[in-house]
Amino acid sequence: MRAFIFDLDGTLVDTVYAHVLSLQQALAEAGLEVPGWLIHRRIGMSGGLSARALAREIGRSLSVDEQATLQRRHGEIYKALQPVRRPLPGACELLRWLRLNGVPFGIATSGRRPDIEPSLAVLDLPDDVVVLDRSDVLRAKPEPDLFLACQERMRVRREDVYVVGDAVWDLLAARRAGMLSVGLLSGGYGVDELTQAGAFRVYRDPQELLQYLDELGVPIPS
Amino acid sequence: MRAFIFDLDGTLVDTVYAHVLSLQQALAEAGLEVPGWLIHRRIGMSGGLSARALAREIGRSLSVDEQATLQRRHGEIYKALQPVRRPLPGACELLRWLRLNGVPFGIATSGRRPDIEPSLAVLDLPDDVVVLDRSDVLRAKPEPDLFLACQERMRVRREDVYVVGDAVWDLLAARRAGMLSVGLLSGGYGVDELTQAGAFRVYRDPQELLQYLDELGVPIPS
Repeated sequence: MRAFIFDLDGTLVDTVYAHVLSLQQALAEAGLEVPGWLIHRRIGMSGGLSARALAREIGRSLSVDEQATLQRRHGEIYKALQPVRRPLPGACELLRWLRLNGVPFGIATSGRRPDIEPSLAVLDLPDDVVVLDRSDVLRAKPEPDLFLACQERMRVRREDVYVVGDAVWDLLAARRAGMLSVGLLSGGYGVDELTQAGAFRVYRDPQELLQYLDELGVPIPS
Repeated sequence: MRAFIFDLDGTLVDTVYAHVLSLQQALAEAGLEVPGWLIHRRIGMSGGLSARALAREIGRSLSVDEQATLQRRHGEIYKALQPVRRPLPGACELLRWLRLNGVPFGIATSGRRPDIEPSLAVLDLPDDVVVLDRSDVLRAKPEPDLFLACQERMRVRREDVYVVGDAVWDLLAARRAGMLSVGLLSGGYGVDELTQAGAFRVYRDPQELLQYLDELGVPIPS
């Protein structure tokens, strides 16, 4: 028996690059000029934590009000920049396969409703799927809270869970939750970054993961 | 004596993420849905080569007309997406330092004029700096032609040249040109990707490179 907990952005939906650009523009509006690659490497961690880290990196702090404005503008600019969200190759097929074969899965994201609704909508999810978002826990990734809460709600044992994510923050949080993890390149990290952060295996995208599920001990019917 | 040949996008100017998104939208207009991370890892190589590679990846080829339209739309969408270009941290300071200290440098990019003009404009370059673009050679990166032509125009020996780039295509082309290379993280690749592609050293951005020039054998006055 195995179970999966998926990250959302960059793991199931192709949203990372639009997030980088929209957060960069929102930061610029707040007077903070942050290079794209630094934002890229912070996507997927708690929004508050990442805003503080980025602000520190360029030498000034953000007030609570500024953080709220930043979050709102990030969402607004994102929507204008990429009104249509696309699943990553194989994402829908993978989730459908798991469903059909009785392998439990859930989704745990540092994003928030309603921002994440359009992403969930394109994944063609069953009604009863467990989805945990930022507002369900006190502390987002890289704290383990999201994965632990998701696993409890799924009623599976943590030692049976593979976390699947594209960012080092997913893999770090998985490790701290006592779960194995799998890295995907579809968020734009390199293989070694994911391996060093603790990924048991690294695949290109959900499509390749589906193809090699047996490498994770999930039997694929021939 | 040392000399430097710099890549432009992701190395001196913070343009990679807007290039990914604008090329992705141009590809989508042509009916090609390509995930962001695959485009990211092709930025900086010859436009024609990258279009063919991406098309092959998703299983259909592009006509010459389609490639021309793609290139035009990529440029147009880019301009709308990121009208203001920003130098990466330390880029202007590094070039100014090299100038003041008599270390020759040039720029060699797979981009084309007039697309690259706004990027060159923000770098505050001296009038006589050697800038080679896609149209100056028959074959762009990862072929060595751009770097070899740049080095000839600069009248320096290839064994004295460090190529500085953010993409594996820069480092591959440098190797084939018989030049040493330095990788920068500011284009969004990971350290190991750049090291494995042959980078002698990897720095965060031009600012860090300037700080550690002596690691490359360039004496920094105290």
